Amino acid sequence: MLACPTFNLRATATPANPDISEPEPKPRSRKLKASPQLSRWHRARALRSGHKLERSGNRVEAVEVNHSVQRTGESSSSESYSAVIDGGDEVEVDPGKPIYMVSDGTGWTVEHSVGAALGQFEHCLVDRVCPVNTHLFSGIDDVERLMEIIKQAAKEGAMLVYTLADPSMAESAKQACKVWGIPSTDVLGPITEAIAAHLGVSPSGLPRGASGRNIPLSDEYFRRIEAVEFTIKQDDGALPQNLCKADIVLTGVSRTGKTPLSIYLAQKGYKVANVPIVKGVALPKGLFEVDPEKVFGLTINPVVLQTIRKARAKSLGFGEETRSNYSEMDYVRRELEFARMVFSQNPVWPVIEVTGKAIEETAAVILRLYHDRKQRCSMPRISKRY
Amino acid sequence: MLACPTFNLRATATPANPDISEPEPKPRSRKLKASPQLSRWHRARALRSGHKLERSGNRVEAVEVNHSVQRTGESSSSESYSAVIDGGDEVEVDPGKPIYMVSDGTGWTVEHSVGAALGQFEHCLVDRVCPVNTHLFSGIDDVERLMEIIKQAAKEGAMLVYTLADPSMAESAKQACKVWGIPSTDVLGPITEAIAAHLGVSPSGLPRGASGRNIPLSDEYFRRIEAVEFTIKQDDGALPQNLCKADIVLTGVSRTGKTPLSIYLAQKGYKVANVPIVKGVALPKGLFEVDPEKVFGLTINPVVLQTIRKARAKSLGFGEETRSNYSEMDYVRRELEFARMVFSQNPVWPVIEVTGKAIEETAAVILRLYHDRKQRCSMPRISKRY
Repeated sequence: MLACPTFNLRATATPANPDISEPEPKPRSRKLKASPQLSRWHRARALRSGHKLERSGNRVEAVEVNHSVQRTGESSSSESYSAVIDGGDEVEVDPGKPIYMVSDGTGWTVEHSVGAALGQFEHCLVDRVCPVNTHLFSGIDDVERLMEIIKQAAKEGAMLVYTLADPSMAESAKQACKVWGIPSTDVLGPITEAIAAHLGVSPSGLPRGASGRNIPLSDEYFRRIEAVEFTIKQDDGALPQNLCKADIVLTGVSRTGKTPLSIYLAQKGYKVANVPIVKGVALPKGLFEVDPEKVFGLTINPVVLQTIRKARAKSLGFGEETRSNYSEMDYVRRELEFARMVFSQNPVWPVIEVTGKAIEETAAVILRLYHDRKQRCSMPRISKRY
Repeated sequence: MLACPTFNLRATATPANPDISEPEPKPRSRKLKASPQLSRWHRARALRSGHKLERSGNRVEAVEVNHSVQRTGESSSSESYSAVIDGGDEVEVDPGKPIYMVSDGTGWTVEHSVGAALGQFEHCLVDRVCPVNTHLFSGIDDVERLMEIIKQAAKEGAMLVYTLADPSMAESAKQACKVWGIPSTDVLGPITEAIAAHLGVSPSGLPRGASGRNIPLSDEYFRRIEAVEFTIKQDDGALPQNLCKADIVLTGVSRTGKTPLSIYLAQKGYKVANVPIVKGVALPKGLFEVDPEKVFGLTINPVVLQTIRKARAKSLGFGEETRSNYSEMDYVRRELEFARMVFSQNPVWPVIEVTGKAIEETAAVILRLYHDRKQRCSMPRISKRY
């Protein structure tokens, strides 16, 4: 999280360093090919041990903020590259390019969409080569505050992305951005219009939580809450007698992401139980008695697993002895081997490789398989009623 | 969740019933004004007890599916209202208006955006007056499958909403939808273009999880996992000695949504602890020793709370005696009074009214306050670095 942004970038930028300002494609591409966790843990360890990482092409653009409000849409035209910063601690002081996100509701939709769009720029965001800062303004339901924010966006040289249910608010935002020369995007407007035409019904124009929008929380909503409470109780092999009540059962060795994955799926309304596979510990009978079509095995690259476990052991303050048993490569390999054996004895369980996958990605793979098996559709899909 | 949709709607629709086909605005508006949970639980109880709810204006449109592919953009023009169905079980067989969601990644962005846009139609979605079904096709990264889906959308009279990182895929989708006369919306395209112009960098065009997009998982990503694991361990007052390690501490009586709220905030990277307030049970000393600016009290309307608790007690299979103690109005009021007293003794804690609020909304309120207090910005905002 970032405190209030500072605008005096020139003051914080270090002088240009021609030696490292030229990109050397090779190391960069090598870095991109490396396994996500590995590179990440490599950097984490390097940072802990304090030694500087060999980086290249870390051209950090320090934007000269244009305080005039006569800015044009092409904000880049008003920028000057005033500094090239080595990707060390100095990067911390660069506030990065601002993206303002405004919502008259919770703001989660605009935050989610901008986050997803930024995924298209990872290649330049990694190591903050071209840093970006997002600023979420939620619950903005009056024009006065909306205008204040837009003026501030102009001052900071920010772009604006918004979700405003009230058409007049959305129009004001659009017009004001035009006047102040701020690039702006309406996230929900186009989808809402398309759905309105499709249903032949006009949108309410009421932001979430507006008094007029006092609609009963749906059964699905309560189902989600129940799923979360169920999943927490089942975490880490607790209450194996309840495995039969779960929609999805995850199993795998320690640090394959069972817990965060279970919670992520629970938030989507699935009751999830997870059963840890520990070498030398018998698995609960229930695991083999439940419908095998709802069981999913998780596996991971041993080298990555070891690095994660070492860090985990450290953070848990394990002693050397304990750690060796938990994160020694021999043990890691043997435990993964044991898991593989269990999986091969239960061929109906899909086995999912989680190495380098974000929880959201593994969840997507699991739910695709889950619904495909449930529906036996010619076209696998996840369907929902509204 | 919905199985593969059936297309023979005429067969499943019941004959028109003029007696209930005319909307009676009064009861409808009364229903909309009622408290969300109350109405929902009222309906739930009514359904359990099997007696039919008095409904009005439940005009359910059964769409005549047009199998010709020469459909025009205005899909509504090709519809005929072939049936009016009383909002009873028969509604179950109405597949509703289909919305196809296609993604070359996880599909969570398009699902989230469509869900948010549908919030603008709650007034007609409630009780499935104009039912909608969404169908998510994720991981669609080849044109062949994309075209299959678009053809199927045309057959079902669906609209298409998509997030396709690969520009050529997005273009194919757009063109095909034009040809097949399907209303279509590109969710991320416009934001991505705007950000590209803002940063002066071109997007990668690679969907999430694509081999070329093997970017190290960010520190924030690992922080989120840690937050989820921390939050689960602290749930329901466990390990009060760890309250000091939490970013946010929630406190309130049973059934004010502490657990799902904690998990929701944890998914966003905050370590959350929640402390239940139970009449006659002393609160942990730690609660009054931690920074009061990170403590949030939750309160709720007693009538709503009682209804929720009754249902909860039933689902937990409490006996009459236990239930009376837990969900009797007298007890509920006294417990809420006790909570109010605790809150008044700790004036720094914000007290949040959760009645009728979705978890996402309460979370938005809490995070606004949390960041406002942390940053002391003239303009409260939630900022993030990328």
